[in-house]
Amino acid sequence: MPTAVVLLSGGMDSATTLAIAKGEGFDCLALSFSYGQRHSLELDAAKRLAAQFGVRQETMALDLRAMGGSALTSDIPVPKDRPLEEMGSDIPVTYVPARNTIFLACALGWAEVTGARDIFLGVNALDYSGYPDCRPEYIAAFEGMANLGTKAGAEGSGFTVHTPLIRMTKKEIVARGLELGVDFGMTVSCYDPAPGPLACGRCDACALRLRAFAELGRRDPARYR
Amino acid sequence: MPTAVVLLSGGMDSATTLAIAKGEGFDCLALSFSYGQRHSLELDAAKRLAAQFGVRQETMALDLRAMGGSALTSDIPVPKDRPLEEMGSDIPVTYVPARNTIFLACALGWAEVTGARDIFLGVNALDYSGYPDCRPEYIAAFEGMANLGTKAGAEGSGFTVHTPLIRMTKKEIVARGLELGVDFGMTVSCYDPAPGPLACGRCDACALRLRAFAELGRRDPARYR
Repeated sequence: MPTAVVLLSGGMDSATTLAIAKGEGFDCLALSFSYGQRHSLELDAAKRLAAQFGVRQETMALDLRAMGGSALTSDIPVPKDRPLEEMGSDIPVTYVPARNTIFLACALGWAEVTGARDIFLGVNALDYSGYPDCRPEYIAAFEGMANLGTKAGAEGSGFTVHTPLIRMTKKEIVARGLELGVDFGMTVSCYDPAPGPLACGRCDACALRLRAFAELGRRDPARYR
Repeated sequence: MPTAVVLLSGGMDSATTLAIAKGEGFDCLALSFSYGQRHSLELDAAKRLAAQFGVRQETMALDLRAMGGSALTSDIPVPKDRPLEEMGSDIPVTYVPARNTIFLACALGWAEVTGARDIFLGVNALDYSGYPDCRPEYIAAFEGMANLGTKAGAEGSGFTVHTPLIRMTKKEIVARGLELGVDFGMTVSCYDPAPGPLACGRCDACALRLRAFAELGRRDPARYR
Protein backbone atom coordinates (compact mmCIF):
# COMPACT_ATOMS: atom_id res chain seq x y z
CA MET A 1 0.00 0.00 0.00
CA PRO A 2 1.41 3.42 -0.89
CA THR A 3 1.74 5.86 2.02
CA ALA A 4 -0.03 9.22 2.07
CA VAL A 5 0.18 12.14 4.48
CA VAL A 6 -3.33 13.46 5.19
CA LEU A 7 -3.79 16.88 6.76
CA LEU A 8 -6.39 16.30 9.46
CA SER A 9 -7.77 19.33 11.28
CA GLY A 10 -10.60 17.45 12.93
CA GLY A 11 -13.31 19.21 10.95
CA MET A 12 -15.77 17.56 8.61
CA ASP A 13 -13.85 18.27 5.41
CA SER A 14 -10.57 16.73 6.58
CA ALA A 15 -12.40 13.76 8.16
CA THR A 16 -14.07 13.05 4.80
CA THR A 17 -10.73 13.49 3.05
CA LEU A 18 -9.13 10.91 5.36
CA ALA A 19 -11.97 8.49 4.60
CA ILE A 20 -11.48 9.04 0.86
CA ALA A 21 -7.70 8.50 1.07
CA LYS A 22 -8.24 5.28 3.02
CA GLY A 23 -10.90 4.21 0.55
CA GLU A 24 -8.43 4.73 -2.31
CA GLY A 25 -6.07 2.24 -0.65
CA PHE A 26 -3.51 4.55 0.92
CA ASP A 27 -1.71 3.76 4.16
CA CYS A 28 -2.48 7.10 5.82
CA LEU A 29 -0.39 9.24 8.19
CA ALA A 30 -2.55 12.00 9.68
CA LEU A 31 -0.92 15.34 10.46
CA SER A 32 -2.55 17.97 12.68
CA PHE A 33 -1.30 21.33 13.94
CA SER A 34 -1.51 23.01 17.27
CA TYR A 35 -1.07 26.55 15.94
CA GLY A 36 -2.73 28.63 18.60
CA GLN A 37 -6.23 28.25 17.10
CA ARG A 38 -9.07 29.30 19.38
CA HIS A 39 -10.93 26.15 18.35
CA SER A 40 -8.19 23.80 19.61
CA LEU A 41 -10.94 21.34 20.53
CA GLU A 42 -10.58 20.20 16.94
CA LEU A 43 -7.26 18.54 17.90
CA ASP A 44 -9.07 16.09 20.20
CA ALA A 45 -11.44 15.41 17.33
CA ALA A 46 -8.46 14.74 15.03
CA LYS A 47 -7.06 12.19 17.49
CA ARG A 48 -10.40 10.44 17.85
CA LEU A 49 -10.99 10.35 14.09
CA ALA A 50 -7.50 8.94 13.43
CA ALA A 51 -8.08 6.25 16.07
CA GLN A 52 -11.44 5.37 14.52
CA PHE A 53 -9.80 4.98 11.11
CA GLY A 54 -6.85 3.12 12.62
CA VAL A 55 -4.20 5.51 11.32
CA ARG A 56 -1.13 7.07 12.95
CA GLN A 57 -1.64 10.72 13.86
CA GLU A 58 0.90 13.38 14.87
CA THR A 59 0.23 16.88 16.15
CA MET A 60 2.93 19.38 15.26
CA ALA A 61 3.22 22.49 17.43
CA LEU A 62 3.72 25.78 15.61
CA ASP A 63 2.51 28.90 17.28
CA LEU A 64 0.99 31.23 14.68
CA ARG A 65 -0.37 33.55 17.36
CA ALA A 66 2.93 35.48 17.26
CA MET A 67 2.04 36.29 13.67
CA GLY A 68 -1.52 37.44 14.41
CA GLY A 69 -3.72 38.83 11.68
CA SER A 70 -6.56 36.31 11.89
CA ALA A 71 -9.75 35.93 13.92
CA LEU A 72 -8.76 32.29 14.49
CA THR A 73 -5.49 33.11 16.29
CA SER A 74 -6.04 36.53 17.84
CA ASP A 75 -8.60 38.72 19.60
CA ILE A 76 -10.30 39.70 16.36
CA PRO A 77 -13.95 38.58 16.83
CA VAL A 78 -15.23 35.66 14.74
CA PRO A 79 -18.02 37.00 12.48
CA LYS A 80 -21.48 35.65 13.33
CA ASP A 81 -24.79 35.43 11.48
CA ARG A 82 -23.36 36.38 8.08
CA PRO A 83 -25.80 35.70 5.23
CA LEU A 84 -24.75 32.54 3.38
CA GLU A 85 -24.74 34.43 0.05
CA GLU A 86 -22.07 36.77 1.43
CA MET A 87 -19.55 34.00 2.10
CA GLY A 88 -17.04 33.59 -0.66
CA SER A 89 -17.46 37.13 -1.96
CA ASP A 90 -14.48 38.41 0.03
CA ILE A 91 -11.55 37.07 2.06
CA PRO A 92 -12.89 36.77 5.63
CA VAL A 93 -11.04 37.69 8.83
CA THR A 94 -10.94 33.99 9.70
CA TYR A 95 -8.34 33.61 6.93
CA VAL A 96 -5.00 32.64 8.55
CA PRO A 97 -2.15 34.09 6.49
CA ALA A 98 -0.33 31.43 4.47
CA ARG A 99 -1.82 28.66 6.60
CA ASN A 100 -2.29 26.08 3.87
CA THR A 101 1.21 26.81 2.54
CA ILE A 102 2.70 26.30 6.01
CA PHE A 103 0.70 23.10 6.60
CA LEU A 104 1.44 21.69 3.15
CA ALA A 105 5.16 22.49 3.59
CA CYS A 106 5.23 20.50 6.84
CA ALA A 107 3.28 17.66 5.21
CA LEU A 108 5.81 17.70 2.38
CA GLY A 109 8.72 17.33 4.79
CA TRP A 110 7.02 14.45 6.59
CA ALA A 111 6.13 12.83 3.27
CA GLU A 112 9.72 13.05 2.11
CA VAL A 113 11.01 11.40 5.30
CA THR A 114 8.41 8.62 5.34
CA GLY A 115 8.63 7.87 1.63
CA ALA A 116 5.08 9.08 0.99
CA ARG A 117 4.60 10.68 -2.40
CA ASP A 118 0.95 11.63 -1.89
CA ILE A 119 -0.49 14.40 0.27
CA PHE A 120 -4.22 14.86 0.89
CA LEU A 121 -5.74 18.23 1.77
CA GLY A 122 -9.45 18.83 2.32
CA VAL A 123 -9.74 22.27 0.76
CA ASN A 124 -12.94 23.25 -0.89
CA ALA A 125 -13.12 25.98 -3.52
CA LEU A 126 -16.90 26.15 -3.93
CA ASP A 127 -18.13 26.98 -0.47
CA TYR A 128 -14.88 28.72 0.52
CA SER A 129 -13.91 30.57 -2.62
CA GLY A 130 -12.97 33.47 -0.39
CA TYR A 131 -9.71 31.80 0.69
CA PRO A 132 -7.02 32.24 -1.97
CA ASP A 133 -5.17 29.14 -0.77
CA CYS A 134 -8.14 26.89 -1.56
CA ARG A 135 -8.03 27.44 -5.33
CA PRO A 136 -6.96 24.69 -7.76
CA GLU A 137 -4.32 26.93 -9.41
CA TYR A 138 -2.70 27.48 -6.03
CA ILE A 139 -2.58 23.73 -5.34
CA ALA A 140 -1.00 23.09 -8.77
CA ALA A 141 1.62 25.78 -8.07
CA PHE A 142 2.43 24.24 -4.69
CA GLU A 143 2.92 20.85 -6.29
CA GLY A 144 5.31 22.26 -8.89
CA MET A 145 7.30 24.09 -6.23
CA ALA A 146 7.44 20.94 -4.06
CA ASN A 147 8.89 18.92 -6.89
CA LEU A 148 11.66 21.47 -7.46
CA GLY A 149 12.50 21.98 -3.78
CA THR A 150 12.85 18.45 -2.42
CA LYS A 151 15.36 15.66 -2.72
CA ALA A 152 12.67 13.21 -3.89
CA GLY A 153 11.34 15.68 -6.44
CA ALA A 154 14.86 16.50 -7.69
CA GLU A 155 15.57 12.80 -8.05
CA GLY A 156 12.47 12.27 -10.18
CA SER A 157 9.84 10.68 -7.91
CA GLY A 158 7.45 13.55 -7.58
CA PHE A 159 4.76 14.49 -5.09
CA THR A 160 1.05 14.72 -5.79
CA VAL A 161 -1.25 16.94 -3.74
CA HIS A 162 -4.75 15.44 -3.76
CA THR A 163 -7.71 17.71 -3.05
CA PRO A 164 -10.71 15.41 -3.53
CA LEU A 165 -13.22 17.94 -2.15
CA ILE A 166 -12.09 20.94 -4.12
CA ARG A 167 -15.08 21.10 -6.45
CA MET A 168 -17.68 19.63 -4.09
CA THR A 169 -20.40 21.50 -2.21
CA LYS A 170 -20.66 21.03 1.54
CA LYS A 171 -23.78 18.96 0.95
CA GLU A 172 -21.84 16.63 -1.35
CA ILE A 173 -19.01 16.40 1.19
CA VAL A 174 -21.35 15.33 3.98
CA ALA A 175 -23.08 12.82 1.69
CA ARG A 176 -19.72 11.32 0.66
CA GLY A 177 -18.51 11.20 4.27
CA LEU A 178 -21.68 9.42 5.40
CA GLU A 179 -21.26 6.85 2.61
CA LEU A 180 -17.69 6.22 3.79
CA GLY A 181 -18.67 5.82 7.43
CA VAL A 182 -17.43 9.13 8.83
CA ASP A 183 -18.91 9.74 12.27
CA PHE A 184 -19.63 13.47 11.95
CA GLY A 185 -20.51 13.58 15.64
CA MET A 186 -16.77 13.30 16.23
CA THR A 187 -15.87 16.26 14.01
CA VAL A 188 -15.49 19.85 15.19
CA SER A 189 -16.20 22.63 12.69
CA CYS A 190 -17.06 25.66 14.84
CA TYR A 191 -14.55 28.53 14.79
CA ASP A 192 -15.65 29.83 18.16
CA PRO A 193 -16.58 27.00 20.54
CA ALA A 194 -14.95 28.51 23.64
CA PRO A 195 -15.24 28.10 26.55
CA GLY A 196 -17.21 24.82 26.39
CA PRO A 197 -17.35 22.03 23.82
CA LEU A 198 -20.60 23.28 22.25
CA ALA A 199 -20.56 24.77 18.76
CA CYS A 200 -21.82 28.35 18.38
CA GLY A 201 -24.09 27.60 15.41
CA ARG A 202 -23.57 31.11 14.07
CA CYS A 203 -20.06 31.38 12.56
CA ASP A 204 -19.49 30.73 8.83
CA ALA A 205 -18.26 27.18 9.49
CA CYS A 206 -21.35 26.30 11.57
CA ALA A 207 -23.73 27.97 9.12
CA LEU A 208 -22.33 26.08 6.11
CA ARG A 209 -22.35 22.81 8.02
CA LEU A 210 -25.92 23.22 9.26
CA ARG A 211 -27.11 24.08 5.77
CA ALA A 212 -25.40 20.99 4.32
CA PHE A 213 -27.14 18.65 6.77
CA ALA A 214 -30.46 20.47 6.30
CA GLU A 215 -30.21 20.11 2.50
CA LEU A 216 -29.64 16.37 2.97
CA GLY A 217 -32.57 16.14 5.35
CA ARG A 218 -30.24 14.79 8.05
CA ARG A 219 -29.71 15.89 11.63
CA ASP A 220 -26.24 17.34 12.29
CA PRO A 221 -24.87 15.25 15.19
CA ALA A 222 -22.67 18.15 16.42
CA ARG A 223 -23.76 19.63 19.74
CA TYR A 224 -24.79 23.28 19.58
CA ARG A 225 -25.21 25.86 22.34
CA MET B 1 10.93 52.54 4.17
CA PRO B 2 9.41 49.33 2.84
CA THR B 3 9.32 46.41 5.28
CA ALA B 4 11.06 43.09 4.58
CA VAL B 5 11.03 39.79 6.45
CA VAL B 6 14.58 38.41 6.61
CA LEU B 7 15.15 34.75 7.51
CA LEU B 8 17.98 34.88 10.03
CA SER B 9 19.51 31.60 11.16
CA GLY B 10 22.49 33.20 12.86
CA GLY B 11 25.00 31.82 10.35
CA MET B 12 27.26 33.86 8.12
CA ASP B 13 25.03 33.72 5.04
CA SER B 14 21.90 34.99 6.74
CA ALA B 15 23.89 37.66 8.65
CA THR B 16 25.25 38.96 5.34
CA THR B 17 21.75 38.81 3.84
CA LEU B 18 20.40 40.93 6.70
CA ALA B 19 23.18 43.47 6.13
CA ILE B 20 22.36 43.58 2.41
CA ALA B 21 18.61 44.04 3.06
CA LYS B 22 19.34 46.89 5.49
CA GLY B 23 21.80 48.39 3.01
CA GLU B 24 19.07 48.36 0.33
CA GLY B 25 16.89 50.49 2.61
CA PHE B 26 14.45 47.92 3.97
CA ASP B 27 12.96 48.11 7.43
CA CYS B 28 13.83 44.54 8.42
CA LEU B 29 11.95 42.00 10.54
CA ALA B 30 14.22 39.05 11.33
CA LEU B 31 12.63 35.61 11.65
CA SER B 32 14.43 32.64 13.23
CA PHE B 33 13.27 29.10 13.97
CA SER B 34 13.77 26.85 16.92
CA TYR B 35 13.19 23.62 15.03
CA GLY B 36 15.09 21.12 17.13
CA GLN B 37 18.43 21.78 15.40
CA ARG B 38 21.44 20.37 17.23
CA HIS B 39 23.23 23.68 16.62
CA SER B 40 20.63 25.73 18.49
CA LEU B 41 23.46 28.01 19.59
CA GLU B 42 22.78 29.78 16.29
CA LEU B 43 19.59 31.20 17.82
CA ASP B 44 21.60 33.22 20.35
CA ALA B 45 23.72 34.41 17.46
CA ALA B 46 20.56 35.45 15.58
CA LYS B 47 19.38 37.51 18.54
CA ARG B 48 22.78 39.21 18.92
CA LEU B 49 23.03 39.95 15.20
CA ALA B 50 19.52 41.42 15.11
CA ALA B 51 20.33 43.61 18.12
CA GLN B 52 23.55 44.79 16.45
CA PHE B 53 21.63 45.77 13.33
CA GLY B 54 18.83 47.31 15.38
CA VAL B 55 16.05 45.16 13.93
CA ARG B 56 13.12 43.31 15.52
CA GLN B 57 13.67 39.57 15.73
CA GLU B 58 11.23 36.74 16.48
CA THR B 59 11.98 33.07 17.07
CA MET B 60 9.19 30.76 15.98
CA ALA B 61 9.08 27.31 17.59
CA LEU B 62 8.38 24.38 15.26
CA ASP B 63 9.73 21.01 16.24
CA LEU B 64 10.98 19.21 13.15
CA ARG B 65 12.57 16.44 15.24
CA ALA B 66 9.25 14.54 15.11
CA MET B 67 9.80 14.41 11.38
CA GLY B 68 13.40 13.15 11.59
CA GLY B 69 15.36 12.29 8.48
CA SER B 70 18.22 14.77 8.86
CA ALA B 71 21.58 14.81 10.64
CA LEU B 72 20.67 18.28 11.93
CA THR B 73 17.58 17.14 13.84
CA SER B 74 18.23 13.50 14.71
CA ASP B 75 20.91 11.06 15.83
CA ILE B 76 22.32 10.65 12.30
CA PRO B 77 26.00 11.70 12.66
CA VAL B 78 27.11 14.95 11.01
CA PRO B 79 29.68 14.06 8.30
CA LYS B 80 33.22 15.27 9.07
CA ASP B 81 36.37 15.85 7.00
CA ARG B 82 34.62 15.51 3.63
CA PRO B 83 36.80 16.69 0.73
CA LEU B 84 35.60 20.12 -0.44
CA GLU B 85 35.28 18.83 -4.03
CA GLU B 86 32.74 16.28 -2.85
CA MET B 87 30.30 18.86 -1.48
CA GLY B 88 27.56 19.75 -3.90
CA SER B 89 27.84 16.51 -5.83
CA ASP B 90 25.05 14.87 -3.83
CA ILE B 91 22.31 15.77 -1.35
CA PRO B 92 23.97 15.46 2.08
CA VAL B 93 22.42 13.97 5.23
CA THR B 94 22.40 17.47 6.74
CA TYR B 95 19.57 18.30 4.33
CA VAL B 96 16.40 18.95 6.37
CA PRO B 97 13.34 17.86 4.36
CA ALA B 98 11.37 20.82 3.00
CA ARG B 99 13.08 23.18 5.45
CA ASN B 100 13.32 26.21 3.18
CA THR B 101 9.71 25.69 2.06
CA ILE B 102 8.54 25.56 5.68
CA PHE B 103 10.60 28.62 6.65
CA LEU B 104 9.57 30.62 3.57
CA ALA B 105 5.91 29.72 4.20
CA CYS B 106 6.13 31.12 7.75
CA ALA B 107 7.97 34.21 6.47
CA LEU B 108 5.19 34.65 3.91
CA GLY B 109 2.53 34.56 6.61
CA TRP B 110 4.39 37.12 8.73
CA ALA B 111 4.99 39.29 5.66
CA GLU B 112 1.30 39.25 4.81
CA VAL B 113 0.32 40.30 8.33
CA THR B 114 2.94 43.05 8.64
CA GLY B 115 2.39 44.44 5.16
CA ALA B 116 5.86 43.39 4.00
CA ARG B 117 6.02 42.41 0.33
CA ASP B 118 9.70 41.41 0.36
CA ILE B 119 11.31 38.31 1.87
CA PHE B 120 15.06 37.78 2.07
CA LEU B 121 16.65 34.33 2.22
CA GLY B 122 20.39 33.69 2.30
CA VAL B 123 20.52 30.57 0.15
CA ASN B 124 23.54 29.92 -1.94
CA ALA B 125 23.46 27.68 -5.00
CA LEU B 126 27.19 27.62 -5.76
CA ASP B 127 28.72 26.21 -2.62
CA TYR B 128 25.54 24.30 -1.70
CA SER B 129 24.29 23.03 -5.01
CA GLY B 130 23.52 19.76 -3.22
CA TYR B 131 20.39 21.21 -1.59
CA PRO B 132 17.46 21.22 -4.05
CA ASP B 133 15.75 24.05 -2.15
CA CYS B 134 18.66 26.42 -2.78
CA ARG B 135 18.20 26.54 -6.57
CA PRO B 136 16.94 29.66 -8.39
CA GLU B 137 14.17 27.73 -10.17
CA TYR B 138 12.83 26.56 -6.80
CA ILE B 139 12.81 30.13 -5.46
CA ALA B 140 10.94 31.34 -8.56
CA ALA B 141 8.38 28.55 -8.12
CA PHE B 142 7.86 29.48 -4.46
CA GLU B 143 7.27 33.11 -5.40
CA GLY B 144 4.65 32.14 -7.98
CA MET B 145 2.88 29.87 -5.53
CA ALA B 146 2.97 32.58 -2.84
CA ASN B 147 1.29 35.06 -5.12
CA LEU B 148 -1.53 32.62 -5.88
CA GLY B 149 -2.04 31.48 -2.28
CA THR B 150 -2.25 34.72 -0.31
CA LYS B 151 -4.76 37.50 0.12
CA ALA B 152 -2.15 40.12 -0.83
CA GLY B 153 -1.07 38.18 -3.90
CA ALA B 154 -4.69 37.56 -4.95
CA GLU B 155 -5.42 41.27 -4.59
CA GLY B 156 -2.52 42.18 -6.84
CA SER B 157 0.32 43.36 -4.58
CA GLY B 158 2.71 40.49 -5.00
CA PHE B 159 5.60 39.14 -2.94
CA THR B 160 9.24 39.06 -3.99
CA VAL B 161 11.70 36.52 -2.56
CA HIS B 162 15.18 38.03 -2.63
CA THR B 163 18.18 35.70 -2.61
CA PRO B 164 21.13 38.07 -2.94
CA LEU B 165 23.75 35.38 -2.25
CA ILE B 166 22.40 32.75 -4.61
CA ARG B 167 25.18 33.03 -7.19
CA MET B 168 28.01 34.09 -4.85
CA THR B 169 30.87 31.94 -3.59
CA LYS B 170 31.45 31.73 0.15
CA LYS B 171 34.55 33.93 -0.35
CA GLU B 172 32.41 36.61 -2.02
CA ILE B 173 29.81 36.34 0.77
CA VAL B 174 32.41 36.92 3.48
CA ALA B 175 33.95 39.82 1.53
CA ARG B 176 30.53 41.46 1.08
CA GLY B 177 29.65 40.92 4.74
CA LEU B 178 32.91 42.50 5.89
CA GLU B 179 32.26 45.53 3.64
CA LEU B 180 28.81 45.91 5.22
CA GLY B 181 30.11 45.66 8.79
CA VAL B 182 28.97 42.13 9.69
CA ASP B 183 30.77 40.94 12.82
CA PHE B 184 31.43 37.33 11.79
CA GLY B 185 32.64 36.60 15.31
CA MET B 186 28.96 36.72 16.28
CA THR B 187 27.84 34.21 13.65
CA VAL B 188 27.54 30.45 14.21
CA SER B 189 27.99 28.15 11.21
CA CYS B 190 29.02 24.81 12.70
CA TYR B 191 26.50 21.98 12.35
CA ASP B 192 27.90 20.11 15.35
CA PRO B 193 29.04 22.49 18.09
CA ALA B 194 27.66 20.47 21.02
CA PRO B 195 28.25 20.34 23.90
CA GLY B 196 30.22 23.61 24.16
CA PRO B 197 30.14 26.81 22.11
CA LEU B 198 33.23 25.89 20.06
CA ALA B 199 32.88 25.02 16.36
CA CYS B 200 34.07 21.56 15.27
CA GLY B 201 36.07 22.85 12.28
CA ARG B 202 35.39 19.62 10.41
CA CYS B 203 31.77 19.58 9.18
CA ASP B 204 30.88 20.89 5.71
CA ALA B 205 29.75 24.26 7.07
CA CYS B 206 33.01 24.78 9.00
CA ALA B 207 35.15 23.60 6.07
CA LEU B 208 33.50 25.96 3.58
CA ARG B 209 33.71 28.84 6.03
CA LEU B 210 37.38 28.26 6.86
CA ARG B 211 38.27 28.06 3.18
CA ALA B 212 36.43 31.32 2.45
CA PHE B 213 38.39 33.21 5.13
CA ALA B 214 41.67 31.56 4.02
CA GLU B 215 41.07 32.59 0.41
CA LEU B 216 40.56 36.16 1.56
CA GLY B 217 43.71 36.03 3.69
CA ARG B 218 41.63 36.84 6.77
CA ARG B 219 41.42 35.11 10.11
CA ASP B 220 38.00 33.53 10.84
CA PRO B 221 36.90 35.06 14.15
CA ALA B 222 34.82 31.98 15.05
CA ARG B 223 36.18 29.94 17.95
CA TYR B 224 37.14 26.38 17.06
CA ARG B 225 37.82 23.39 19.29
